[in-house]
Amino acid sequence: MSKHQLRRLSDAGLVAEAPIASIAMKTSILALAALSLPVAAFAQVPGGGVYKYPAQQMADGAHKGDTIAWDFVEGITTEVGPRQAGTEAEKRGRDWAVNWLKEQGFKNVADEPFMMNTWVPGEVHKAEIISPFPQPLVVQPLGGTPSTGPEGITAEVVEFGSLAALNEAPEGSLKGKIAYVTHAMTPSQDGSHYGYFGGARFVGPGLASQKGAMAIVIKSIGTDQHRNPHTGVIRFPEGVTPIPAGALTLPDAANLERMFDRAEGPVTMKLTLTPEWIGETQSGNVVGEIVGKDPSLPPVLLACHIDSWWNGTGAFDDGAGCGIISAAALHVSHYGQPLRTIRVLMAGAEEVGLHGSVAYSKAHIDEPIAVAYESDFGADRIWRFESNFRETNPELHAKLAASVARFGVANSRIVATGGADINIARDQKTAIIDLQQDGTRYFDLHHTPDDTLDKIDIDQLRQNVAVWTQVTAIVANEPGSIKGE
Amino acid sequence: MSKHQLRRLSDAGLVAEAPIASIAMKTSILALAALSLPVAAFAQVPGGGVYKYPAQQMADGAHKGDTIAWDFVEGITTEVGPRQAGTEAEKRGRDWAVNWLKEQGFKNVADEPFMMNTWVPGEVHKAEIISPFPQPLVVQPLGGTPSTGPEGITAEVVEFGSLAALNEAPEGSLKGKIAYVTHAMTPSQDGSHYGYFGGARFVGPGLASQKGAMAIVIKSIGTDQHRNPHTGVIRFPEGVTPIPAGALTLPDAANLERMFDRAEGPVTMKLTLTPEWIGETQSGNVVGEIVGKDPSLPPVLLACHIDSWWNGTGAFDDGAGCGIISAAALHVSHYGQPLRTIRVLMAGAEEVGLHGSVAYSKAHIDEPIAVAYESDFGADRIWRFESNFRETNPELHAKLAASVARFGVANSRIVATGGADINIARDQKTAIIDLQQDGTRYFDLHHTPDDTLDKIDIDQLRQNVAVWTQVTAIVANEPGSIKGE
Repeated sequence: MSKHQLRRLSDAGLVAEAPIASIAMKTSILALAALSLPVAAFAQVPGGGVYKYPAQQMADGAHKGDTIAWDFVEGITTEVGPRQAGTEAEKRGRDWAVNWLKEQGFKNVADEPFMMNTWVPGEVHKAEIISPFPQPLVVQPLGGTPSTGPEGITAEVVEFGSLAALNEAPEGSLKGKIAYVTHAMTPSQDGSHYGYFGGARFVGPGLASQKGAMAIVIKSIGTDQHRNPHTGVIRFPEGVTPIPAGALTLPDAANLERMFDRAEGPVTMKLTLTPEWIGETQSGNVVGEIVGKDPSLPPVLLACHIDSWWNGTGAFDDGAGCGIISAAALHVSHYGQPLRTIRVLMAGAEEVGLHGSVAYSKAHIDEPIAVAYESDFGADRIWRFESNFRETNPELHAKLAASVARFGVANSRIVATGGADINIARDQKTAIIDLQQDGTRYFDLHHTPDDTLDKIDIDQLRQNVAVWTQVTAIVANEPGSIKGE
Repeated sequence: MSKHQLRRLSDAGLVAEAPIASIAMKTSILALAALSLPVAAFAQVPGGGVYKYPAQQMADGAHKGDTIAWDFVEGITTEVGPRQAGTEAEKRGRDWAVNWLKEQGFKNVADEPFMMNTWVPGEVHKAEIISPFPQPLVVQPLGGTPSTGPEGITAEVVEFGSLAALNEAPEGSLKGKIAYVTHAMTPSQDGSHYGYFGGARFVGPGLASQKGAMAIVIKSIGTDQHRNPHTGVIRFPEGVTPIPAGALTLPDAANLERMFDRAEGPVTMKLTLTPEWIGETQSGNVVGEIVGKDPSLPPVLLACHIDSWWNGTGAFDDGAGCGIISAAALHVSHYGQPLRTIRVLMAGAEEVGLHGSVAYSKAHIDEPIAVAYESDFGADRIWRFESNFRETNPELHAKLAASVARFGVANSRIVATGGADINIARDQKTAIIDLQQDGTRYFDLHHTPDDTLDKIDIDQLRQNVAVWTQVTAIVANEPGSIKGE
């Protein structure tokens, strides 16, 4: 590896404190990260191996043979299945998780209720091309959008090659029309395409309404080639009339685009989507604890979400995440009581607008937490470690990064901002860690009927549990401030 | 390659007439096949290459850049879409094909009508677990099965680990129950798993009815892991009461099997499928010809089917096949009028019981054909050449096999029996060729919503066209009997 190559890695935030000089070509990035390891006690372990930290023993065990995370995600997807926020299905999911956490030995297990305005997808989801090439297309409603009524809406479809093109349409130009917006999303390891191309969903429906459209269909925000619509929440801006909005599968979107290429006149669609807002219902946040030796110290918070979209079984999103965080907490506890309490938060109603995260922060804002981190990006391997205390507590940051290097996790200079369910950490301005998972195939499955147990690779799931166990063992036994401020 | 290895290949029918001795290790099977080539004239071609046959020039051109097959399959899937047998959608598909064939320059293009008893899938396709783990499963009806009525059937589900296990159930033991049958199908290059494991669909519903079941659901006969039901036709034996029959997707079947593992009592399902028999309707066989120099010679018949199941767009099954055969006929004609007429047959109503194939044979039984072959196994590459005249016309068999070796097609001792749409060849006991396609991913897509244009790999599609062009150029210019009897 040349100095130039190293500098580029360093500039990219991938090698934080690695010395540049006198490194043999074969030295890996992981080995470089290890150079910044503090000297630590060595412990003999069963089988004759040597561990630098007790935490390594737990993590390596989890890496080889964790069954806890799989048990959670297999159990909840089989015995409950889809868990649409605010519905009785989500309630069954929370009940299931409460029972499971108690059975596993968690303490202070509770379902902390909150009220929410609840949307359900309804029964009829149809998009039919009426002319010039009559055929059915596969569609599902986007979360929070209104119904077309059971009689449907029949109108000309106007094609936009991007969100930017829709944005340029003159005001009123879509009156009486259905807008169609496409995008060019491709798979990305860090999932950044979702933020960039997802605007067709996040913003497209509101924009189309502002231009006068009576409805909108989008190419699903996803990267697969199956007949799976990718749903997901949208919110119409204040003062903008909500319009029915649906996601076509990627093959159907491609077909529609070919129709635009071939049609000599307008393309007309009948769209029938019958979602409903059913008023205020109860959701809740499921919590449980591994109680620490010193309850006066702020706890560490491990988060996921318990709800899922109706169309899959919530395996990748986010049954796996709840399994991973619970398994990590348990592995740490199985090796002895940690110094700090480890709290797991399985937030309710994340998908439809982070209701659980908001409610949790509101309810617990006056109870300081030490550090928070979340698993909500599928079940594929963790590849990058980030914190928001690399500058304020460099020794701990380096220790944590080094501790997970052997699982193929790189250090990073990116400042962690946390996931959807740890609003409380942002509100309290406390320490945050991001254990970034490989998102290459995440958007093949995200918010689709295909989010089912069979998509989970148990070896990668175990790598997640191992990394989480390693990190949790360190922070839960850290006596000083994690943030270091 | 050792003598032993060669013998094993030979035993398997993969090396027909190859000499065993003095072959260097690096000699490929394809090169071995070429050793039996007859001496042929060499022709200079544009670009400086040398062709042994004029046919090679056409085939190599098709291999590099055929656009005809893609044009057909893109056109019919985009402008027509699903083409359920006997419906107006199939009629639009036939009309589309008739116009396309005429535009491409085929002569004697016609839609030869026949009447059939027609089944349609209906609108409601639901399977819900009622207890102990309520959740929806994704299901679609099997072809030809009756309705549960819109109110559905709610009953205990009885699990069978195989068709053999269902067969062993005592008479009457399934009274008032829904049978569930699983299987262990995996992908296979020659598709042989379909024949072996497909019994759960072909025979399962009839067997379940005989045991007293009120309905049956099966694990889809397929090899993917998506929320795609695989439909397909069934026929109940004479005297057996038809019962509603549905296919669960493979992920849903796996989920149901986990429920059986976890349930302490019965698993209860509500099944609602509303297919209908709508009586006699018209279907038809689309035909077209490249007229040969000598119309007194029996024509060569190239077949595919024009209908598809309602749930996909009939791209792999069998839009691609119709594109391949048409492209081959056209490539041959573009290089000069062939000796024999080349007839393409796009059979109607194949999926639901080979109605078109039967009707075609009945209508044309007194018009001898020289040879028939069919493309109906997707759009992946051809890997094996088979005929039913290897013993009766060994020189032609060897010439054909050798001619396609450069496209990665191996010779075989397997006796060709032909596909579904060339009943006439079996009825006339004439020559048959099978150009076997790679079926490794065929049963990921077969009879599912995922049978869409994006699944077609244009390079493999072109290899098909090249092989078909090569073979057709030879047989259509062969003055003597193809069968050689």
